[in-house]
Amino acid sequence: MSSPSESAAPGDAVYDLAPECTTEDVEVGRRYAATVNGVVEYGVFVDLSTTVSGLVHESNLDGEYEVGDEMTVRLIEARENGDLGFESADATGETVRVEYEPDITPANDLRNHVGEEVTVDGEVVQINQTGGPTVFTLRAPAGSVACAAFEAAGVRAYPAVELGDAVRVSGTVEKRDGGLQIEVESLDPHDDPDDLHEAVEEGLAERAAANDVDPMVEWPALADLVSDLEGVATRLRRAVLENRPIRIRHHADGDGMCASIPVALALSRFAEEVHDDPDAGRHLVKRLPSKAPYYEMEDVTRDLNFALGDRERHGQKLPLVVMLDNGSTEEDVPAYEALAEYDIPVLVVDHHHPDPEAVEDLLAAHVNPYLHGEDYRITTGMLCVELARMIDPSLTEELAHVPAVAGLTDRSEADAMNDYLALAQEKGYDENDLQAVGDALDYAAHWLRYSAGESLLADVLDVGTGGDSPHGELVEFLAERAEHDTEKQLDAAMPHVEERDLDNGAHLYRLDVERHAHRFTYPAPGKTTGAIHDAKVEETGDPVITVGYGPDFAVLRSDGVRLDIPRMVEELEDEVDGGVSGGGHLVVGSIKFVKGMREDVLDALETKMGEAEIDEELGSATVAGFED
Amino acid sequence: MSSPSESAAPGDAVYDLAPECTTEDVEVGRRYAATVNGVVEYGVFVDLSTTVSGLVHESNLDGEYEVGDEMTVRLIEARENGDLGFESADATGETVRVEYEPDITPANDLRNHVGEEVTVDGEVVQINQTGGPTVFTLRAPAGSVACAAFEAAGVRAYPAVELGDAVRVSGTVEKRDGGLQIEVESLDPHDDPDDLHEAVEEGLAERAAANDVDPMVEWPALADLVSDLEGVATRLRRAVLENRPIRIRHHADGDGMCASIPVALALSRFAEEVHDDPDAGRHLVKRLPSKAPYYEMEDVTRDLNFALGDRERHGQKLPLVVMLDNGSTEEDVPAYEALAEYDIPVLVVDHHHPDPEAVEDLLAAHVNPYLHGEDYRITTGMLCVELARMIDPSLTEELAHVPAVAGLTDRSEADAMNDYLALAQEKGYDENDLQAVGDALDYAAHWLRYSAGESLLADVLDVGTGGDSPHGELVEFLAERAEHDTEKQLDAAMPHVEERDLDNGAHLYRLDVERHAHRFTYPAPGKTTGAIHDAKVEETGDPVITVGYGPDFAVLRSDGVRLDIPRMVEELEDEVDGGVSGGGHLVVGSIKFVKGMREDVLDALETKMGEAEIDEELGSATVAGFED
Amino acid sequence: MSSPSESAAPGDAVYDLAPECTTEDVEVGRRYAATVNGVVEYGVFVDLSTTVSGLVHESNLDGEYEVGDEMTVRLIEARENGDLGFESADATGETVRVEYEPDITPANDLRNHVGEEVTVDGEVVQINQTGGPTVFTLRAPAGSVACAAFEAAGVRAYPAVELGDAVRVSGTVEKRDGGLQIEVESLDPHDDPDDLHEAVEEGLAERAAANDVDPMVEWPALADLVSDLEGVATRLRRAVLENRPIRIRHHADGDGMCASIPVALALSRFAEEVHDDPDAGRHLVKRLPSKAPYYEMEDVTRDLNFALGDRERHGQKLPLVVMLDNGSTEEDVPAYEALAEYDIPVLVVDHHHPDPEAVEDLLAAHVNPYLHGEDYRITTGMLCVELARMIDPSLTEELAHVPAVAGLTDRSEADAMNDYLALAQEKGYDENDLQAVGDALDYAAHWLRYSAGESLLADVLDVGTGGDSPHGELVEFLAERAEHDTEKQLDAAMPHVEERDLDNGAHLYRLDVERHAHRFTYPAPGKTTGAIHDAKVEETGDPVITVGYGPDFAVLRSDGVRLDIPRMVEELEDEVDGGVSGGGHLVVGSIKFVKGMREDVLDALETKMGEAEIDEELGSATVAGFED
Repeated sequence: MSSPSESAAPGDAVYDLAPECTTEDVEVGRRYAATVNGVVEYGVFVDLSTTVSGLVHESNLDGEYEVGDEMTVRLIEARENGDLGFESADATGETVRVEYEPDITPANDLRNHVGEEVTVDGEVVQINQTGGPTVFTLRAPAGSVACAAFEAAGVRAYPAVELGDAVRVSGTVEKRDGGLQIEVESLDPHDDPDDLHEAVEEGLAERAAANDVDPMVEWPALADLVSDLEGVATRLRRAVLENRPIRIRHHADGDGMCASIPVALALSRFAEEVHDDPDAGRHLVKRLPSKAPYYEMEDVTRDLNFALGDRERHGQKLPLVVMLDNGSTEEDVPAYEALAEYDIPVLVVDHHHPDPEAVEDLLAAHVNPYLHGEDYRITTGMLCVELARMIDPSLTEELAHVPAVAGLTDRSEADAMNDYLALAQEKGYDENDLQAVGDALDYAAHWLRYSAGESLLADVLDVGTGGDSPHGELVEFLAERAEHDTEKQLDAAMPHVEERDLDNGAHLYRLDVERHAHRFTYPAPGKTTGAIHDAKVEETGDPVITVGYGPDFAVLRSDGVRLDIPRMVEELEDEVDGGVSGGGHLVVGSIKFVKGMREDVLDALETKMGEAEIDEELGSATVAGFED
Repeated sequence: MSSPSESAAPGDAVYDLAPECTTEDVEVGRRYAATVNGVVEYGVFVDLSTTVSGLVHESNLDGEYEVGDEMTVRLIEARENGDLGFESADATGETVRVEYEPDITPANDLRNHVGEEVTVDGEVVQINQTGGPTVFTLRAPAGSVACAAFEAAGVRAYPAVELGDAVRVSGTVEKRDGGLQIEVESLDPHDDPDDLHEAVEEGLAERAAANDVDPMVEWPALADLVSDLEGVATRLRRAVLENRPIRIRHHADGDGMCASIPVALALSRFAEEVHDDPDAGRHLVKRLPSKAPYYEMEDVTRDLNFALGDRERHGQKLPLVVMLDNGSTEEDVPAYEALAEYDIPVLVVDHHHPDPEAVEDLLAAHVNPYLHGEDYRITTGMLCVELARMIDPSLTEELAHVPAVAGLTDRSEADAMNDYLALAQEKGYDENDLQAVGDALDYAAHWLRYSAGESLLADVLDVGTGGDSPHGELVEFLAERAEHDTEKQLDAAMPHVEERDLDNGAHLYRLDVERHAHRFTYPAPGKTTGAIHDAKVEETGDPVITVGYGPDFAVLRSDGVRLDIPRMVEELEDEVDGGVSGGGHLVVGSIKFVKGMREDVLDALETKMGEAEIDEELGSATVAGFED
Repeated sequence: MSSPSESAAPGDAVYDLAPECTTEDVEVGRRYAATVNGVVEYGVFVDLSTTVSGLVHESNLDGEYEVGDEMTVRLIEARENGDLGFESADATGETVRVEYEPDITPANDLRNHVGEEVTVDGEVVQINQTGGPTVFTLRAPAGSVACAAFEAAGVRAYPAVELGDAVRVSGTVEKRDGGLQIEVESLDPHDDPDDLHEAVEEGLAERAAANDVDPMVEWPALADLVSDLEGVATRLRRAVLENRPIRIRHHADGDGMCASIPVALALSRFAEEVHDDPDAGRHLVKRLPSKAPYYEMEDVTRDLNFALGDRERHGQKLPLVVMLDNGSTEEDVPAYEALAEYDIPVLVVDHHHPDPEAVEDLLAAHVNPYLHGEDYRITTGMLCVELARMIDPSLTEELAHVPAVAGLTDRSEADAMNDYLALAQEKGYDENDLQAVGDALDYAAHWLRYSAGESLLADVLDVGTGGDSPHGELVEFLAERAEHDTEKQLDAAMPHVEERDLDNGAHLYRLDVERHAHRFTYPAPGKTTGAIHDAKVEETGDPVITVGYGPDFAVLRSDGVRLDIPRMVEELEDEVDGGVSGGGHLVVGSIKFVKGMREDVLDALETKMGEAEIDEELGSATVAGFED
C-alpha cells in the first residue's frame, strides 16, 4: 500500500509527489505542488507526477498560467474514470515530500504473482554467482526470495551489495526449476534498513514458532515436557528458515530410530516447503546414527571437518547439532566442547539418565524427563513424535503408531503405553505387529551398520514412504530373520552360560560372548546377553543377574537385584588398576576395562553383586544405549 | 507409410480425406469427396485435401459447378509429374473418412534424419523436468527416443501426459550432447494405444533377444548350458533397453573377475549404444565384489537401501540383480527373500554346488553346470564369456583368452581347457602368461579390498582397456609380487605346520594361521592354507589333508581323502555345542564355529578325517569360494 | 606486432600485402603492389589491401590508369590523419608477399582485454565438449587459455583439431564463471608449429621455475638441500601448469602434517592463480595421509585405480605422486614399481633414514638430509615450508611458525631450532603454544583416522584458514584433551609396566599394550609407549629401554643404549621362525612378527638389548614413523 511518508490532516501541508507516484498517492482535499502542462480555454492542465495529472477548471483558477509554471492546487474531485479535478490553492505552510512507496509483495504471496512485476524488501542472506545471473537470496519478513540479476554471463551483478544488506528489489516473478525467483529489474539499498531488519527478525520469529499441537495422548508426565519441546521445535524451524544445516546424531537403536526418523522427516518437509525446493530436505538435514551411546571424539572431529569444508566450498553456514536418544551425559562433554569452539549450538532430546551439571552449560536446549522428575519410561521416540508434529503438524496421522513402537523396543512400562497401543490399533497395528516393526527396525539397522539407511528404514517404520512401500511383508520378513538369527545365536551360547549362586541368593549367569557367541553378526553381544537374561528370568522366576563379557567389556542385566552400576564402576575404578569405566542404572549397564585385567574386574564385580540388595520389584527394562 | 484407415475395393466407398492427407493417400480408381476450387474453360479444379487437388476435364464432367461446390470424383489418372485427373462419380454408398497417417520414423533410424521433421510413436517411460525443457523419453518399437518439449524455462510441458501413456510426437531431430533428441512440435495421445503397446512390446522383445553366437570352443558339456545362458542374456539386454539398473554381485576371486568383468563390459557397451550416451554404462551397470562367498544380509540391506534411494531421488527403476560365481546356495536365501519383498528379480550364473530346492523359487534364472549333471570344471568365467558375447558379439576377440585364465585360476580339469589354452595361444598367451594374469588378478583384487577396481583390473585382464594399457609389464609385476609375498608368508608359516598321521594313513597338516602367518596381508588365510597344502602334496606324494585354522574358522583341503565336508559339518553341528556351520565339497571346504569351542571342533574333525575313505583319484582342485 | 614476413631494406623488394594487412604493415620508402580503385582529376586512388589505400598525386604519376589496373607504387608520405601518399614505382626485382600478422596477446594479459577481440597462439592441451560449445584449452607461451567454439548445442566444433595441435585462435575475451575465455571466431592450424611448440616449452619452463626465496633461517645444513628442493618445486609448479593432478601421500603425524599442509596450500593457490579458477586447487591437488609409515600396496592400488578411472572418465592426466615425510625406504619399492608401470613420476621429500640404492632409480627426485650427510633433525616440515615458499612465496609470513611446530613434534635437536622458535615468537607463539599446536595436530589427526581433514587441521595449524579460525582456543582445547587422554591411558598402563635390569645395567620396561592399555583410542600403542618411556627416563635418570608390545608387534625406545634396531631385526629374522620384520634407528624402532612367536621374539630381543652398548649421549628423540 502506498501512503504519504508523513500523515497530515487535509490542508495541513502541501504535498510534493515524487515522479513515480500514482493516483494511489493522492487524496481528495489535500494540496499538491503541480506544474502546468497545458493551457486551454476552460482552464489549465497540471501534472503532480509523471502519471498523476488533471484539470483546474477556469472556474477554480485564480490567475493566469503558462505551460511550465509551478502552482499549488487542491484535489477537489476524483472521478471513477480516473479524471482528477483541482482548484487553485495557497502555497502557505509546510511542504511535505511524498516518496513513492510501491506495494511490497509478501514473500509467501509470490506464487500468486507469477509473470507480474513485484517489489520485495529483504536482507541479503546468500549471493551465488552462477555461470549466468547472480542469484541473491533475500530474507523477507514472510519468507525467502531468490532474485536473479543478470549483468553478463558469469559476471557479478550489483557488486556493491553484500551479505546482510537490507535491499529493495523490483522485478518479474518467474518459475524456475519448480521454484520461484524474481528476475531483477532493480536492486537498491533499502531506505530504512533498521526497520527492515526488525521486521525480518519479527517475521522470522513468527514463522519459526512451533506449531501448537495437542499431545497425541493425555499424559501429565509428558505434558511437563511440552514447553521444552516447543523450544526445540522453534529452534529447529528457525534453522531451516535461516538455511542453516541440521545434523541429527542419534542412538542407533529402535527408540533412536523412532525418534530421529520422524524429526528428520518433519524438518525435510518443512525445508522443502519453505525453500520451495524438493531437494532442500536432502541438502539441509542429515541424520547420522552414532556407533557409541555417546558423541565420540571421532564423530565430532568428522562432523566438524565436514561442516568447515561445506562452509569453505559451498558457503554453507555451520550447522546446528541435534542429539536424539543420546547426549545427556558427561561422556558427551568433550564433543560439545569441540563444537563450542565454533559456536555450533547443540540441542538434546534424550531419556537417558543425565548429568545435568556436566552438560547444561554446553547445550542450547536439553529436553529430558529426568529433568522433570520423570524417567526413561517416556522414551525419546515418544518425545520426538511430538517434536516432529510441532515442526510439521500434518504428520500426526502418519506417525500415530510410532510412539508405541518406540515404547515396545525400549520396553517402556509407562502408563501411557496403553493409550499409545490404542492409537496404533486404530491404524490396524496390534501389539505383535508393533513389536515386529521394532524387531525389524533393529535388525535392518544392525546390517546397515551405522549408515543412515533412509529409504529402507522408512519402509520398515512406514513413515515418509510416499505410500509405495511393502511395509507389512518387509517387517514380517525382517522380524522373522531377527528371531531366526537370535535363536541360532542362543543355540551356540546357551550351553556355555555359567551359573553361580550369589551370597544374596540371586542367580548369576555369565557368558564369554567373544568365545561362545558368533561374532560380527546379529544379535551383537549386548542383545545376546539380553536374550539370555530374558530366558533365565522366565526359566527361574528368581532374582537373576546376567553378565555377557568380552575381552575388554561386560554388559550387565539384572532382575530383582539393585545393582547401582554407576557406583560399582566408581568403586572398581579405585580398586582395580584396569582402566575401568562405564555407566548405566540400577539394573542395566555396561563396563569397559583393559583386556589384561578382565578376571580381576569380573571377580570384583561378582563380589559386589553378591552384596547387592535384593528388590524383586526391579524390572528388566532394557534401557537403550547400554546393551551394545 | 500412409493408408486409408479402412481398406476397401476400388469403388466400394467414397473416401473423404483429412486436410493433412497427401497424394500418398489416394489411389487410382477410388472415389473421393472433393470441393471445387476453380472453374475453367476445359473443366473444373477440385481439392481433396489441403495438398491434393487436380482437374476434372470437361469431357469427364457431368454438370455445372461453381467454386465452393462439393462433388464426388473418381481418380482416373496419376501422372509422373504429380498431376491428378478425375472424373465425376456418383455419391452413392458408404463414405469413409481417411485420417492422415504420417510416416513414422523408426527410433533407430533417427540418425539419418538429423535436422528433419519426423513423427514417432512410443510409450512414455520417463519424464524429466529440466531447468529448460521437459524431456519425455519414449519407448518406441525400435528403440528409445528423447523428446524435449519447451513450455517455459523449468515449466512442465504437456502436464496431462503421464508415464506409460502411448503418444505420437512430431518434431525436429537434433543432436544434443552427442545423443539425438526430438525438439517437440506436437505431442498427442496415440489413436490406438493398445496396438502401440503391443508393437512396443514386440519390438522390445526382438531387440532384447540374445545374439546367436557359436561357443568359442566345441564342448558338449557347455552346449547344454547355452540356452540357459541365452535366457539370461535376453533378460539382461532387456533390462538395459528398459533403462533398469543392473547390479552385478560376484565372487571376489579370479574366476569371479573373469566372469563379471566381461559381462559388465558387454552390458556397458550395449547400454552406451542403445542410449546413445557414453555414460550410460556407468549409470546402469554396477559391479560389486562380495566379501563373503554368498550374498550377505549386510550386502543386501545396503543394495536395497541404495536402490530405494536412487528410485526416490533420481526416479530410477529398482534394479535387476545378477549373481556371478556365487549365489547358488541356501546361504543366499535370506538375501533373495529380502529382494523379493521389492520384486527385484535375481539371475544367477554359478558353478558352485547348488541347493536347487532352496533357491529355485527365488530366482528368475539359474545357470549352473550341476543342474545339467556337469560340475565346477565348467567355470563361471567360461560361462560368462559366452554370456558376454551373447550380449555383445563384438567382444569375441577381446575375450578370447579369458576362459583360459578362468580355468587356470580355478584349476579346472575340464577337457576343454586345451582348446581354451589354444585360443589364448592364438592371441600370444602361453600357459605361464595366463597363470600370471590369474595371479595378478588375484593379487590386485586382494589389495583393492572389495572395491570394484574397474580401471586397474581391466588393465590386468586386458579387457575393455581401449588399448592404452601396460598389460604385459603390469601382469608380470603383480604376479611377481604375489609370488614374493606368498614365499614370505610360507617362510613364516612352514616351520609351524604340525604333522599328524591319521588312522587311515593320510597325513594331516595343521597350521594356526592366526598365530603363524602374517595377518591382513597377501596371501590371506585360505590361500596360505592352499599354498601349504600344494607344497605338502608335492613333497609327500601321499594322501594329504591340510587344515588352516584361526580363532573361529578352519579351511580344509584334501588330496586323496574323500572328506565330504557338508556331511562333516552337519555331524559337528550336532556333536559339538559350538555354533558350527560351513560348506564345501568332497575335498575343499571351510568351517566356522565359536571361538571358545575351537579345540573341540578341531579334535572332532581330526577323528572324522581319520575315518574318511582314501581315494587317491581325488584331486586338489581349488573350488573358488571356500578358501578365503 | 605486425611485420613483413621477411625483412628487407626499403626499396629492395615490391611488397604484396595480404588483404587483411593494415597500415601497420607499411613503411615509408617501400614499394607495394597496388590496384587502382578510382581515377580523379588530380591523380588516382590505389588499394594495397582491404584497408590500406591512398593517393598517387598526378605529379607523382607516370602514365594513365583505369579503375582495376594493377600498378607498383612507393609509399612517400604517411600523414598523422592516416592519409597515405604514393608515387609510381618500377616493378623490377623480387616481389615479397606480406602475410597479415596479427598482434598476439600473451595469455597472461587477457584480463586487460576483456570485451576486445584478440588473437592467441597455443597448443591444444584439452578438448571438452559441453552441452553448448566445444571448449579448447590452449597452452600458450605465457599461460593457458580456454577457447569456446560454438557449432551447435553439443556439437563438436573444429572436429579436425586434435590434442597437441599448434593453433591460432581469434575471438573475443569474455568473463565466464569468474574465469576468462575466448569466444572463438576462428581457430586455424598455426603456420609454424615447431616454433610455437618451442616457444610454449620455453614459456612453460620459465613459468614453472621455482621462486628464488631465501631460507627462513640461516642454517648451512639446510642450505645444502635448497637446490634439491628447488628441483622439486619446479616439477610441482610445472605439473600445475600442465594440469596434471598431484597426489600428496604423507606420514600421518605432526611433522608429516607440517610438511604436507603447506605444500598442498601452496600448490592449490598456485593452481587457482594459474587456471583462474577458485576450484582448481581442489581438482588438482589431493593430500592423503598414509596409515603405514610407508607406501602400502593397498594405498598404491587404490591410487592407481582412481587415477586410471579419472583418466577414463574425465580425460585427466595420470598424476604426479609426492611422498612427504615418508617414502625413502625399501618398503616403498613395490608401490613405486607399480606406479612405474604407468610412468607416474614420484618425488620424495623425507628425513627418515633412506635406502638410496633401493629407491633412487624409481624416483624422479629425492630430497633427504641423509643424502647430504645430515640427519632427521632437519625435519620434513622444515624442508617443506621452504618448498611451499618456492612454490608460492607469498606464504612466508603465514608459515613462519610451522617449522618450529614440526621441530617440536619430532623433537628435533637441530641447532636451528632456536632460530625457528624465535621466528614463531615474532608471530606471538612461545614454545608452549607451539608444543600445544603439535599436540593438537596429533590429537585431531588421530580422530580424523586418515581422512585428510583439510578444514579442521587448517584451523589447528593456522595455515590457509582465510583468517576465520578459532585457532587459539581450538588448539588449547585439543591439546588439553590429548593430555587428559594420555593421563587416562597411563593410569591404566603404568601399574602393569614390568621392569627388568639388563646385563648392561640399563633398565628395561615392558608393557603389553594390548592387554594393559585402552584400545582404539588416543594415544595409540606407539605414543603410549613413548609416554611411558619419557616418564621412566625422567624418573630414573639411568639408561632406559621401553618396549610396548601387542600380539604381533613391538615398539622400542631407548635412552642411553645403542640398540641399532635394523641390525637386531636382521638377526631376529634369522634366529626366530617368526616372520620378523621391522625398522628404525639406533634408539627408536618397531618390529613385527607373527602372533605365535611373540614370546620367542621378545626373549631374544631382551638378550640382545642386554648385550647392547651403553652410550649415555644417545637421546630419546622421537623419529616420526616408528611409533604408531
